[in-house]
Amino acid sequence: MRFRVVAGGSGPGDARAGVLETAHGEVRTPVFMPVGTQGTVKGVTPRELREVGAEMILANTYHLYLRPGTEVIGSAGGLHAFMGWDGPILTDSGGYQVFSLAALRRVTDEGVLFRSHLDGSEHFLTPEEAMEVQLVLGSDVMMVLDECPPSDAGRGAVEEAVARTTAWAERCRARAGESGPGRGVFGIVQGGVYPDLRRESARALVSIGFDGYAIGGLGLGEGRGAMLEAVEATVAWLPPDRPRYFMGLGTPAEMIAVMARGVDMFDCVLPTRLGRHGTVMTRHGYVVVRNARYAKDFGPLEEGCDCYACRNFSRAYVRHLVAAREILGLRLCTHHNLTFLHRVTKEAREAISAGGFADWSAKFLAGFEHGPENSRSA
Amino acid sequence: MRFRVVAGGSGPGDARAGVLETAHGEVRTPVFMPVGTQGTVKGVTPRELREVGAEMILANTYHLYLRPGTEVIGSAGGLHAFMGWDGPILTDSGGYQVFSLAALRRVTDEGVLFRSHLDGSEHFLTPEEAMEVQLVLGSDVMMVLDECPPSDAGRGAVEEAVARTTAWAERCRARAGESGPGRGVFGIVQGGVYPDLRRESARALVSIGFDGYAIGGLGLGEGRGAMLEAVEATVAWLPPDRPRYFMGLGTPAEMIAVMARGVDMFDCVLPTRLGRHGTVMTRHGYVVVRNARYAKDFGPLEEGCDCYACRNFSRAYVRHLVAAREILGLRLCTHHNLTFLHRVTKEAREAISAGGFADWSAKFLAGFEHGPENSRSA
Repeated sequence: MRFRVVAGGSGPGDARAGVLETAHGEVRTPVFMPVGTQGTVKGVTPRELREVGAEMILANTYHLYLRPGTEVIGSAGGLHAFMGWDGPILTDSGGYQVFSLAALRRVTDEGVLFRSHLDGSEHFLTPEEAMEVQLVLGSDVMMVLDECPPSDAGRGAVEEAVARTTAWAERCRARAGESGPGRGVFGIVQGGVYPDLRRESARALVSIGFDGYAIGGLGLGEGRGAMLEAVEATVAWLPPDRPRYFMGLGTPAEMIAVMARGVDMFDCVLPTRLGRHGTVMTRHGYVVVRNARYAKDFGPLEEGCDCYACRNFSRAYVRHLVAAREILGLRLCTHHNLTFLHRVTKEAREAISAGGFADWSAKFLAGFEHGPENSRSA
Repeated sequence: MRFRVVAGGSGPGDARAGVLETAHGEVRTPVFMPVGTQGTVKGVTPRELREVGAEMILANTYHLYLRPGTEVIGSAGGLHAFMGWDGPILTDSGGYQVFSLAALRRVTDEGVLFRSHLDGSEHFLTPEEAMEVQLVLGSDVMMVLDECPPSDAGRGAVEEAVARTTAWAERCRARAGESGPGRGVFGIVQGGVYPDLRRESARALVSIGFDGYAIGGLGLGEGRGAMLEAVEATVAWLPPDRPRYFMGLGTPAEMIAVMARGVDMFDCVLPTRLGRHGTVMTRHGYVVVRNARYAKDFGPLEEGCDCYACRNFSRAYVRHLVAAREILGLRLCTHHNLTFLHRVTKEAREAISAGGFADWSAKFLAGFEHGPENSRSA
């Protein structure tokens, strides 16, 4: 799996623009990946994903493994064919959901025993099984199975998680083998907020050798400062010629701060989740469009946005739809939010290429954090 | 408001094809109008309405009057601008909802006192008010306020409803005045299943003079035979050069039977409602795609259909989406169902133009009623 840095990235902590070559096309980084948990980005068709600027999406192995099941998706010819998306797909390993969503029964060196959140059925997930499922899904980027300790775990638990994650990563790498051109496996760096454990985890994974490296176990309540320090402590030990991926981050300000530290890939349910609740993201902050103050606001969701929702509908209309619980309301908010986040990454790429990332990000953040629309209630 | 019959219609009970000229474009009849109750056809964008073949839609005055309210839609410049649909819109008068959905308080010759189903607020709807609201909405076709008696009403109650409907129709006609080119008012024939009352109602409305005539008060449980007889008893007294509209009918077989009796316009929530529950309409009957038997069916929702859903997704995928309660599932089913009903009316128009409506409808009905997919559970 080829990756090349095309601008920036002069040091480990510099923002950079790159191109990831996958079996389903090139992806320009920094990239935001909409989340398609159950084989669909919620409420959005594949052609709309293209329209909002999506180049790569994420799907959740845990959910798809449980429903509709690997056999159905395998029979369909893989996830791309099943869901009608011909662009690149990154799948997680299912580990995070097993640790957060399922009823966790037992973690051993061999794997994880858990009960399905859907029907209580018992499953045993090993590193090998996690890769096998992702191979059947036909993912462009597969993630290793990792152990993600809770945010309040003590240093001892984080140390254990790092050791187990390293051991599992080796087994995942071995099981995945050579996945073919444009398909790859990413390791996941753990280590919590401890710089020495981040270094240990990163170095161990790099010595195994992966197509890219994710930063895991952050954004779970450790606070912004600690999060950014952990990112720096991780990126310092990652090879510059491999893509870096921060899992589960999609707030614009934090995404930009992490980009500024040399991270290339992001995913988050935020734009779709906010959209489903009638909140839209704009360069001047969040707009809780369901609020009564927008009842007669005939301007677009975001001034200057050229997305389908902003070109054709007013805040007043979308506010009416949200108030009346009409599906079209959440569709339009989601459509706009995805367009917005892809515009953020596009502007970031252009700023990096022009050598002006610092200026661009300072301006963007000033407008976003202190914009007239910003609503902390979002 | 101009209407011309372009084929068929040699007698009062013959299927016919026509063109209705509205301020927002021509509509080819027989036409099916998707229902946009709250200013949106549920889950569907205006551009998708064009894609599925919609030429005209219906919106509900009662719902829009209560929420977001006439003032908001008026400020937006009317319903077309508010909802972003530039094709023709027919609005009902609100009468049917007042009689069926709201808490009805009192019906007098003056109007109807009712409580909102949303917040219990009290409203008094007069024939004049019903027209004023529709004038603000900017409807291409406005419907008069009528009294729709329940299906188990005795003859006395139906007689009263006819008399009141006639009196109200006169006031509606007077209040609407000349609405401008391409805009018109339709009367609504009542009379239940009594042929003489149908005649009386139709003749009274025709003598007032409307741009078109609706057949109201049917499809409420009177049975198929009685319904069709009442249609015949109504159509016999309607002028051949005016459009005829059967309110609230969208089952393919009944639509075709009513078309065969010279009716031009239809509306129904059926395709969107079935779609939201994971049932799709095909020429071989209904497919309850959420059923487990479709879990590994990788064919399209309907073989031979060229809609976006059928071109890109399988029954297995849509079944997965419906089972996982994903919004995209109901979107795809709705998209297909609307395409299907518009294909039915298109085929009907072509058959009428070619002089082969009877053959076409016999073939269609045989395939639909006795098709391998037909499921009475739908």
